[in-house]
Amino acid sequence: MSPSPNAPIGIFDSGLGGLTVAAAIAARLPSERTLYLGDTARVPYGNRSPATVVRYARNNVAFLRERGVKLIVVACNTVSAQGLGGLADGGHLPIIGVIRPGARAALAASEGEIAVLGTPGTVRSGAYEQAIHEIDPQRVVRAYACPLFVPLVEAGWLNHPVTYKVAEEYLSPLIGTGVDTLILGCTHYPLLRGVIDEVATRLLGRRLRIIDSAEAVAAAVEGFLDEARLRATATPRRRFFVTDAPEGVEEIAARFWGDAVGEPLKLEHVDLVDKG
Amino acid sequence: MSPSPNAPIGIFDSGLGGLTVAAAIAARLPSERTLYLGDTARVPYGNRSPATVVRYARNNVAFLRERGVKLIVVACNTVSAQGLGGLADGGHLPIIGVIRPGARAALAASEGEIAVLGTPGTVRSGAYEQAIHEIDPQRVVRAYACPLFVPLVEAGWLNHPVTYKVAEEYLSPLIGTGVDTLILGCTHYPLLRGVIDEVATRLLGRRLRIIDSAEAVAAAVEGFLDEARLRATATPRRRFFVTDAPEGVEEIAARFWGDAVGEPLKLEHVDLVDKG
Repeated sequence: MSPSPNAPIGIFDSGLGGLTVAAAIAARLPSERTLYLGDTARVPYGNRSPATVVRYARNNVAFLRERGVKLIVVACNTVSAQGLGGLADGGHLPIIGVIRPGARAALAASEGEIAVLGTPGTVRSGAYEQAIHEIDPQRVVRAYACPLFVPLVEAGWLNHPVTYKVAEEYLSPLIGTGVDTLILGCTHYPLLRGVIDEVATRLLGRRLRIIDSAEAVAAAVEGFLDEARLRATATPRRRFFVTDAPEGVEEIAARFWGDAVGEPLKLEHVDLVDKG
Repeated sequence: MSPSPNAPIGIFDSGLGGLTVAAAIAARLPSERTLYLGDTARVPYGNRSPATVVRYARNNVAFLRERGVKLIVVACNTVSAQGLGGLADGGHLPIIGVIRPGARAALAASEGEIAVLGTPGTVRSGAYEQAIHEIDPQRVVRAYACPLFVPLVEAGWLNHPVTYKVAEEYLSPLIGTGVDTLILGCTHYPLLRGVIDEVATRLLGRRLRIIDSAEAVAAAVEGFLDEARLRATATPRRRFFVTDAPEGVEEIAARFWGDAVGEPLKLEHVDLVDKG
């Protein structure tokens, strides 16, 4: 049975950071229904083992599949970095991750070396290097794990002196390299874009191009829907599920969602079953 | 059926920090068998909602109960702070948490105000205030959430300048108070004890007494076993389970476990089933 064009797009992330991706999709594809799932009861995924990341991702895919989505967007760098092959779970749902679109956008922007900032899991996986080298095997790619950026964003220390200090620590290995483009390889990092930009410019004495993969993913989703003739014609509806209580996280969720779409965010709680 | 004295003591924590409690129990009660469970696939609990914390804790209790433990030690401040009543799950297993022993140790040490450093969940719960006020209703208790301490410990930045900066931020509200005693209300914090001690002394111009509840919990366990006539007579055996892959976390586990017992740590993986 082939999916209906008016079925929703499913989007999931380990937490709320993927709302930056959901917002880019809503802005670019305003007629589409979307179902967002943030696994806030088990966030963060970035320090977990590959097996556990894949297991959690499968729980998320199963939840979205049961709700009849036509496409799944993995708005989580850590999951995308483990490879999307293991998520299909015998079904035929198309799955789009954040790594390839981000890699392509960086290659389009860069003439020199490319740097990737990510969680330890994303960096260990080598997924960005691999995606870039599939297109340009000679390109130099440098990846740096930034484990404290997510907790700093979640603590709301977006412009705190400590955050600048941590950014200096993570970005100082860029000194003396030929990097001209930086991929924000985690959906939390766009909220630190200003800090990262300022610190990198100060350390290197020149500005880097900064790639936020949310835009690139939205473009990839549009391309896929056009090709598969799955563009929606219905009235859009957007729902946002979280696996932990929504109370207390509305503020940070609103920060990720932004106001590009001019529509407030309402988080709904859902219990996700993990069959182990 | 009453439990056998030679049944193991079950100890669980959201992750590896509770190994400080397990080490204190091993040092004080060397004849006891212990089973440790660290829920590393879902760590940290500190920012999660009470309902999710209790649900995860019940999964942990069920795992230990099935393995025939005679007593459960909740070596996790966040879980202990939600109250232990909801964990018993119809069974008759005695459950000892970290809050009351820590509160009693602080009252024994302090003549003035008591400060508690903890995760946001522990601080929101007001559990330390409540435990202290049950004994001394007049005592002034001040609690401070320190959400970045756990990620800093997990990143291994135990003596990093950033960690000192963060400690200054968290401890500066103590200036001008009558606090003489500080409870480390999270099992990760003993690894920052030196930093906390140094920064507090610099900020306040005097030293604080610092209470690590691991020792206090071990004493409470000993007292309970004596009273219930459940002290072991068998050869001790210690097992350590984690719910995510052990690879890559051995180093931080060894840091929490220390070498007080002169026995190396071997982590075993177990899949924990969450029935939702």
